Amino acid sequence: MMNELFSLIRISSVSALPEHKDDMLACAQRWKELLLEAGADRAQVMASSGNPIVYGEKIVSPDVKTVLVYAHYDVMPAEPLELWTSDPFEPEIRDGKIWARGADDDKGQAFIQVKAFEYLLSHQLLKNNVKFIFEGEEEIGSPSLEQFCKDHKELLKADVILVSDTSMLGADLPSLTTGLRGLAYWEIEVTGPNRDLHSGHFGGAVANPINVLCGILSKIIDENGRITIPHFYDDVEAVPDAERTMIAQIPFDEEKYKKSIGVEQLAGEAGYSTLERNSCRPSFDVCGIWGGYTGEGSKTVLPSKAYAKVSCRLVPHQDHHTISELFKNYIEQTAPETVKVKVTPMHGGQGYVCPISHPAYRAAEKGFELAFGKKPLAVRRGGSIPIISTFEEVLGIKTILMGFGVEDNAIHSPNESFSLDIFRKGIEAVAEFHMEYSK
Amino acid sequence: MMNELFSLIRISSVSALPEHKDDMLACAQRWKELLLEAGADRAQVMASSGNPIVYGEKIVSPDVKTVLVYAHYDVMPAEPLELWTSDPFEPEIRDGKIWARGADDDKGQAFIQVKAFEYLLSHQLLKNNVKFIFEGEEEIGSPSLEQFCKDHKELLKADVILVSDTSMLGADLPSLTTGLRGLAYWEIEVTGPNRDLHSGHFGGAVANPINVLCGILSKIIDENGRITIPHFYDDVEAVPDAERTMIAQIPFDEEKYKKSIGVEQLAGEAGYSTLERNSCRPSFDVCGIWGGYTGEGSKTVLPSKAYAKVSCRLVPHQDHHTISELFKNYIEQTAPETVKVKVTPMHGGQGYVCPISHPAYRAAEKGFELAFGKKPLAVRRGGSIPIISTFEEVLGIKTILMGFGVEDNAIHSPNESFSLDIFRKGIEAVAEFHMEYSK
Repeated sequence: MMNELFSLIRISSVSALPEHKDDMLACAQRWKELLLEAGADRAQVMASSGNPIVYGEKIVSPDVKTVLVYAHYDVMPAEPLELWTSDPFEPEIRDGKIWARGADDDKGQAFIQVKAFEYLLSHQLLKNNVKFIFEGEEEIGSPSLEQFCKDHKELLKADVILVSDTSMLGADLPSLTTGLRGLAYWEIEVTGPNRDLHSGHFGGAVANPINVLCGILSKIIDENGRITIPHFYDDVEAVPDAERTMIAQIPFDEEKYKKSIGVEQLAGEAGYSTLERNSCRPSFDVCGIWGGYTGEGSKTVLPSKAYAKVSCRLVPHQDHHTISELFKNYIEQTAPETVKVKVTPMHGGQGYVCPISHPAYRAAEKGFELAFGKKPLAVRRGGSIPIISTFEEVLGIKTILMGFGVEDNAIHSPNESFSLDIFRKGIEAVAEFHMEYSK
Repeated sequence: MMNELFSLIRISSVSALPEHKDDMLACAQRWKELLLEAGADRAQVMASSGNPIVYGEKIVSPDVKTVLVYAHYDVMPAEPLELWTSDPFEPEIRDGKIWARGADDDKGQAFIQVKAFEYLLSHQLLKNNVKFIFEGEEEIGSPSLEQFCKDHKELLKADVILVSDTSMLGADLPSLTTGLRGLAYWEIEVTGPNRDLHSGHFGGAVANPINVLCGILSKIIDENGRITIPHFYDDVEAVPDAERTMIAQIPFDEEKYKKSIGVEQLAGEAGYSTLERNSCRPSFDVCGIWGGYTGEGSKTVLPSKAYAKVSCRLVPHQDHHTISELFKNYIEQTAPETVKVKVTPMHGGQGYVCPISHPAYRAAEKGFELAFGKKPLAVRRGGSIPIISTFEEVLGIKTILMGFGVEDNAIHSPNESFSLDIFRKGIEAVAEFHMEYSK
């Protein structure tokens, strides 16, 4: 069974890098084959305005409920490669885990869905219809999926959407994600002089674009950890007291958390706990920065250009389009006249809140309980799956976030992994979900 | 004649990059051949603790004065290569100029010295002894030259040192450099979490090393353009009023200056003019910065590391060792506890002031006057040649900075060039210097 998953992982479907264009199609085609082998009536690779989309379905009857399973076959870049213990695109099993880029996010998790489907079907236990839509641009913000949904509303018709692309609180602490943060992402380009200058001849008399960029970025968060862009918090809903009480009850070992990521002290917005900061409150991070001489040794240069890639995580009700404009305009308008500053919005997505009274939410809760032996906690998570709110807007369908990741899996980092034990429990939980939901 | 210079330029002797180690030796050997061809009694490539040093001499008589000519055969990296009109290491003559890395700094200028020497010798006009010392580590701070001078005091004995490695105010505005700034250079490494983290899962709760680095760097210069490191200005000598008056009389077109580097507005320390800011006052520049995801597209990452290469230009009396320590200690001690900050001093050099009453200074003045038709102005320059103050300390010899560069030559930048007209005038000026000085 693992060979099927490994065949997917070996295709380095990195959506952020144009040199992997062919891998995207190859990965989509491999998924199509696997869906047919698992028992789908039909499966096809469909064109979108970007990377192709895999669609598959098993229609049991027109009179029963339909679950639309969404996942993505693209992965994050694996760099820096030197930090991987084994090749990111040649999966290895060590210590009861699969090690590879995509082992969790999202090839491994998508595979859980397909294997649960195959199990139900082969045991004549599937009582609802199942549709699959696997896209290839989730890690770059799903730029083509909204239009694809608009163009194929009938095809994608369903009662609920099921997504495995989130994490649990821990391997022994199953949880269902009831909220996600939104995202806005920009690239900032600062141009000073028209060429790199000798820092001896010009230093002290000409604005240095790196110095200026650092000044701009350092002012975006104030000393209380709050974002200083005017009107940024206008639509931020205060975290309800009931939810803060629930969050405070989540077993969370802050010392262990710090140790696992190797920091002495945490940082964040004053007045909020760590779990609130990384799930219910907005954040601002510089994801990348570069400019000037970055090679070996020293070069005394006053560079012409400096760049940064920056992002904000947003909370439900903050519109990412509004925030994107607010940020761009504020940064460009407050830039000093000694340089030129250009802010380019890259991508974005809305936050999401899932209703815990939905029958599919209850079925998912049941699935977790049977597979993991514990009722899952309902928690908000800090990540973003922008497409979830698009599904609601375009297709009018709610999504259940039934994810099986754990923090140690190191998604988006070197040495991504996925536990074989959770893998098996995940298949059981998803199978139970379908049986419960179709009752 | 140009073929000899071109043969030097074609050897890409980039001292900052270890892959050019062989080029350093090749370039030194080529200089040795050219010195012998020009008429040196002896020339040799000598070992140092770093790149080899070329030494040559012509002893006319033990009873006459000796001029020691210093230059460097190493060049700055040529990157970014795509901005060059022609290959940086394949010289081209266009529009009356030589275009190549090192055309000015310092192969072209060193060549002026050798050609003037050859001219005098071949016309029986050389009345003083001449020694040459060409090093291969000037662009990385001359780490081996001080020890070499200590080890070869007798060999390097001279009455004055002559250096062509500075610029004039303009092609029609000859000037002699009477002061240079010092330099201190550091690399800063900021470490946050022990691996790159998913910015959705951790963003807002964990300090981002790029955000922190930007905060550190943005606080080094205050709103008045002054450096905030405590005690940084303790040894800075105020620019004397007489010098400020002289500087104010230098023909300087600020609009043209801004236009030539493509900026709308200049920046710098309050209370000082542009020419003061870039020559008599200290400066702080970020020469390079990097961290996180810098590839195409967007990656939502909270990175583990961020780096910067930073430097200060210093003024005479500021000791670069003291400043280096002050800076390192202050940055490390004031770093937030949410990250680890490491500051590594890279290299440094002292500033220099040249006495305008020195007989060799007057000879140089005369040389310029005859070759360019104008008495040169005495000006301080913002660049650094750290070895100049070392010569004074170790060998006890004053240096005359008789340089022929102009700002348009774009040294350290893409499309470095050198005017053939100035090249000829430079040879004439140096020849006249020797004749005047040996009277």
